[in-house]
Amino acid sequence: MATYLDHAASTPLRPEARDAWVAASELVGNASSVHGAGQALRRLLEDSRERIAATLGCDPIEVVFTSGGTESVNLAIQGLWHARAVGRNTIVLPDGEHHASLDTVAWLAKTQRAEVRSVALLPDGRIDVDAFRRTLPDAALATALFANNEVGTINPVADLASAATDANVPLHLDAVGAVAHLPIDFAALRGGHRAPTGLVALSISGHKVGAPVGTGALVVSRLAKLEALLHGGGQQRGLRSGTQDVAGAAALAIALERSASDRDVETPRLTALAERLRRGIRSAVPDAAFLGAEHDRLPGHVHVLFPGALGETLLFLLDQRHVHVSTGSACQAGVTEPSHVVLALGRDERDARSVLRITLGRTTTGADVDRLLEALPDAYARAVASSARGAARS
Amino acid sequence: MATYLDHAASTPLRPEARDAWVAASELVGNASSVHGAGQALRRLLEDSRERIAATLGCDPIEVVFTSGGTESVNLAIQGLWHARAVGRNTIVLPDGEHHASLDTVAWLAKTQRAEVRSVALLPDGRIDVDAFRRTLPDAALATALFANNEVGTINPVADLASAATDANVPLHLDAVGAVAHLPIDFAALRGGHRAPTGLVALSISGHKVGAPVGTGALVVSRLAKLEALLHGGGQQRGLRSGTQDVAGAAALAIALERSASDRDVETPRLTALAERLRRGIRSAVPDAAFLGAEHDRLPGHVHVLFPGALGETLLFLLDQRHVHVSTGSACQAGVTEPSHVVLALGRDERDARSVLRITLGRTTTGADVDRLLEALPDAYARAVASSARGAARS
Repeated sequence: MATYLDHAASTPLRPEARDAWVAASELVGNASSVHGAGQALRRLLEDSRERIAATLGCDPIEVVFTSGGTESVNLAIQGLWHARAVGRNTIVLPDGEHHASLDTVAWLAKTQRAEVRSVALLPDGRIDVDAFRRTLPDAALATALFANNEVGTINPVADLASAATDANVPLHLDAVGAVAHLPIDFAALRGGHRAPTGLVALSISGHKVGAPVGTGALVVSRLAKLEALLHGGGQQRGLRSGTQDVAGAAALAIALERSASDRDVETPRLTALAERLRRGIRSAVPDAAFLGAEHDRLPGHVHVLFPGALGETLLFLLDQRHVHVSTGSACQAGVTEPSHVVLALGRDERDARSVLRITLGRTTTGADVDRLLEALPDAYARAVASSARGAARS
Repeated sequence: MATYLDHAASTPLRPEARDAWVAASELVGNASSVHGAGQALRRLLEDSRERIAATLGCDPIEVVFTSGGTESVNLAIQGLWHARAVGRNTIVLPDGEHHASLDTVAWLAKTQRAEVRSVALLPDGRIDVDAFRRTLPDAALATALFANNEVGTINPVADLASAATDANVPLHLDAVGAVAHLPIDFAALRGGHRAPTGLVALSISGHKVGAPVGTGALVVSRLAKLEALLHGGGQQRGLRSGTQDVAGAAALAIALERSASDRDVETPRLTALAERLRRGIRSAVPDAAFLGAEHDRLPGHVHVLFPGALGETLLFLLDQRHVHVSTGSACQAGVTEPSHVVLALGRDERDARSVLRITLGRTTTGADVDRLLEALPDAYARAVASSARGAARS
């Protein structure tokens, strides 16, 4: 039996979401069809949209279904960019954002002459609100993580949103990593602002809350100016063409509802488990340092710096004991890069290669935490020895 | 019990595809994760990719999973556009294409200064190969339907592909409507061409072959030059970032395999049912005309012009008898537009409003055909009367 402690990468499908998906997939047809079969699908789709809107504090018409977090983020950033006012060519991009934002903005810089203004992170991983506020004037758009997906720090999103409102700049929040754990109230964050600026778009992903991979949504203010990314049949206010995935929408609706209704129990439970994990790590590896904010952080999200050990080696050694964690950094073609988030906290490259992200979720028990703690001392000792041998060779 | 004769809009989920989806969705994790849980998902994903490649005649690495037909078409057209050579600013776009292509090209024309060269259709709905060939020189890219999704005519795709090869222009084929019914051999259509031109991309959609809505793929030649549409984690050769939908991929693989293995039985069965339907329609409505090619057409795809009746009225009256068909035209905000495909056949606007698309599929029986034929005479008489009243009023 494996110990899965990588819920931030993907959390198991909720049985209720699976059942909703299977039930909806029995319905035959296309939700855009005019006939009775299409209408039945359409009703289920719109019912799901209403339920999702209720969990996110927005109007149903503001929920645009997508294929997941990456598409939502791309739609928000590319869509706001293409709809921008003439002469506004700058994108405000904090350091330490997710690759979906980083790479979309980099692509707009490369091909569409976007200019990028970065915003530093504070040492605990929060976006510096004052610095953010100073970069906003005349920007085409700004984007920011609701909570950092690597170190787990929750951003001061109300302050970021009101800074965007004050500066009359459209803001996108990437809430993919936050939605499972934090209440989201889109309308409250907009604060009744009656212009196509301030918080105008918010991304969520299904598989981070127990809905299927391939589901997600972008909340888009009805006042926002946004161009579509996928063009075609004109579904969803023309903002996202393509046959609508009704089964996925129904599964996403129930997963978000259950996630919200579990929160009062789950937040303290995960917070306590994470604290138990941190205590255990501290006692096994006294030099370990916990990165990210101490208090304003996702419950169940532990990010540890293990001095003298490579994160990828630790991951490998724990994996041999069937304990699944993450380094939290992008790994492409087998080459592990140092975490750009850890670098953005002011740490050096060695530190940025010595981290593990351990994320707990709905199915995590105290026994899972104990199994990690049991495997850790030996794995850490071996990772340090391996790292020392590597240093001796080079 | 309703009679569903709108399989071109969406065909029912195959039970084997549902079971594959449910089984895969039990696996916990993210296929991009390095640990054992991620690796198990990765193996199932790559196994699915190999099986899909085998059904489409391409290499596994050439299969890029997407969220469906619309995303595939957008990725192909926008991706080829952004990767084009300097000075190549024209897109070759036959008349009567699907809205996914039409609207993507229109958007590139509006925002990226693309120029459009159209290609006329022959009266039976085929793309005129000579005209296509003449428009190709120096084009940035060309796109074409494998088979027309409204009238069901199969295009001379081998000739289109070799014209693109000869002209050194990259070609995308939209095989969304064709993939359930026709064998597709990507490598054969490329013909061993060793350049980033000729047939380089081919779109398919899952829910047209009995896989879930929200699944699909773009076959992308390993020689193609293509920019990504969704940027982020760099999955799938960087061509399509986003957490990979392993359950969807497994479901798509089995649906394509079953669709291919059923074809020897299904093609003659659907052809015979369609012929029975055409005979019945001809005897109930002697003035009815069948549009599209007589022989080179999708089996089970019947497209009828009912003189003196509005297609939308007929659709509504048949729907009251629980018979589900389509007008085949885009219907947005309740306003039915005349079919741009029927117009492209050289018909007038009245004809383009008087058509029904009746599409049979895997679950269609002779009894379904009979129920349509039973409901048709009365529905047609009432639609003609309604149309005459409308004309008298105006």
